[in-house]
Amino acid sequence: MKITMAHGSGGRSTSRLIDEVFRSANANPILDMMEDSAVVDGAAKIAVTTDSFVVTPLFFKGGDIGRLAVCGTVNDLLMRGAVPKYITSAYIIEEGADFETLSKIAQSMAETAKEAGVTVIAGDTKVVEGNGGIYINTTGVGFVYDGADIRSANCKAGDAIIVSGTLGDHHAAILSERMGIENNIKSDCAPLCDMVRNMMDAGVEIHAMRDVTRGGLGTVLNEFSKASGCRFELDEDSIPINPEVAGFNKILGLNVMHMGNEGKLVGIIAPRDAERALKIIRNSRYGTAAEIIGTVTDGEGVVMNTHVGGRRAIIELYGEGLPRIC
Amino acid sequence: MKITMAHGSGGRSTSRLIDEVFRSANANPILDMMEDSAVVDGAAKIAVTTDSFVVTPLFFKGGDIGRLAVCGTVNDLLMRGAVPKYITSAYIIEEGADFETLSKIAQSMAETAKEAGVTVIAGDTKVVEGNGGIYINTTGVGFVYDGADIRSANCKAGDAIIVSGTLGDHHAAILSERMGIENNIKSDCAPLCDMVRNMMDAGVEIHAMRDVTRGGLGTVLNEFSKASGCRFELDEDSIPINPEVAGFNKILGLNVMHMGNEGKLVGIIAPRDAERALKIIRNSRYGTAAEIIGTVTDGEGVVMNTHVGGRRAIIELYGEGLPRIC
Repeated sequence: MKITMAHGSGGRSTSRLIDEVFRSANANPILDMMEDSAVVDGAAKIAVTTDSFVVTPLFFKGGDIGRLAVCGTVNDLLMRGAVPKYITSAYIIEEGADFETLSKIAQSMAETAKEAGVTVIAGDTKVVEGNGGIYINTTGVGFVYDGADIRSANCKAGDAIIVSGTLGDHHAAILSERMGIENNIKSDCAPLCDMVRNMMDAGVEIHAMRDVTRGGLGTVLNEFSKASGCRFELDEDSIPINPEVAGFNKILGLNVMHMGNEGKLVGIIAPRDAERALKIIRNSRYGTAAEIIGTVTDGEGVVMNTHVGGRRAIIELYGEGLPRIC
Repeated sequence: MKITMAHGSGGRSTSRLIDEVFRSANANPILDMMEDSAVVDGAAKIAVTTDSFVVTPLFFKGGDIGRLAVCGTVNDLLMRGAVPKYITSAYIIEEGADFETLSKIAQSMAETAKEAGVTVIAGDTKVVEGNGGIYINTTGVGFVYDGADIRSANCKAGDAIIVSGTLGDHHAAILSERMGIENNIKSDCAPLCDMVRNMMDAGVEIHAMRDVTRGGLGTVLNEFSKASGCRFELDEDSIPINPEVAGFNKILGLNVMHMGNEGKLVGIIAPRDAERALKIIRNSRYGTAAEIIGTVTDGEGVVMNTHVGGRRAIIELYGEGLPRIC
């Protein structure tokens, strides 16, 4: 069955779409109440983030737009030291989209929400003219750990720079799908709950943290540099990259420093906690390939110490990146 | 200047779009922090709601998509007895949209947020292929009044049914714009903060409350009926309607009971508080035309007592309503 404009007009077709596709995937007592807003327990400090997902194709190796829509938002909450609690799910559906496709995506969202420990507490569905495209907005609410103060401006000279695993996987996977290239590259799309909670529970002194998405690590570290007034010195040899992604990048002339991921974080960690943090991340579900990739110093900008012994400035992504990667 | 796919790729063009259009309209210290999520004060009970806005045209008599995107979400929070506090703002922009149009919309959002007393704490911008369309998702967080328990299931026989003003205005305004009909009908698009806060502060016993949007009052009351197991008896003569809207409806054969509004609520109020609630609403900025339009009784469904002395069942909106009205 195909979606038509009638499914967006707020009458019975809309109710049926919501019941059959979204409510059945996310059954929970809060959603069942069907009121204008959900009323839930709060906390003294909350984190809030919003993100829309417009990725094409909708399904790709390692994930789909539904899994992505949960991971992206959950990870943004974690990056401020918050435990993700609630998520909202708002679909904008173009006419002609397929019921079955929608159900698969809704199911994938529900499974990922379960994995990440968040409850879908509110939803919305709109239908617009078009060619069967699907866009999802998720907004997340998390409870902030007591005393957590994690933000870019807190980076200090001496801090260690840790990435939680191989870079570029999501970007390379999406690009491979679009170009019809056969390979084994999978998106890294994943919720990073356990690695962050384990660091917070262990009292690791995290100064700043960011998931490495659109714009890549180069863009994130340049933002950190501007906010903190520090320089970020990287060691090229220590940057984890899947060999197949490295080969793919070489052929296409891509720079991993500007490629988006959807399940990797960069943490700026007080020096005395660096080794402990690395161990915790490596023991987490999605962190086995974590590495310390450099050090924060006095100065400005982001500098890569290359494996041939050179030094190269890394700038933020400029101009055209890969559109609709998330 | 026109939006291109480069404005969505997460690089410098994206930063410039965000800085020039969205950040400048909504300048506040939380947004200025530019982190993955906003960390803000919470409360013991919070209300959360999400809504995407896809209205066409983007500008109409009485409002625009930006004002609508704030009002819709703020009103949904109010309907559960929550004080709206925070709002997120996520734009999906089709290629070819105009910078100036976006700026006007962002400015309108900012002004409406100010009127409604909410802070824009997080945003997101995506660009997709298309023809210059603009979609906005807003998600709202409110702090729930101590002890408030406002929900459809709480409607009781004997309760008064109050609407806060004339019905059908938003629907008729959008339809007039689309059909190119010249008239003075304006959208009622407004945040209903003061009428709700004044009722809550005065301790009015509100059993259920809903803003009357897509699907109209007929759909809302049928939902109330199902959730509470009560009948909703309406008096046709008491239903407030702008005479110009009534004329417009007569010509086009529209039923006001299924027309969307964007600044009207229906409250189900304990009988002893009905007159007091009516007075409070009438003294509020957008409530001067409020009326008690009927009574909740034992039974089921929604029944209209017509001005010719008949009785007519009002069903929920079925099939095609007006698409892209909000």
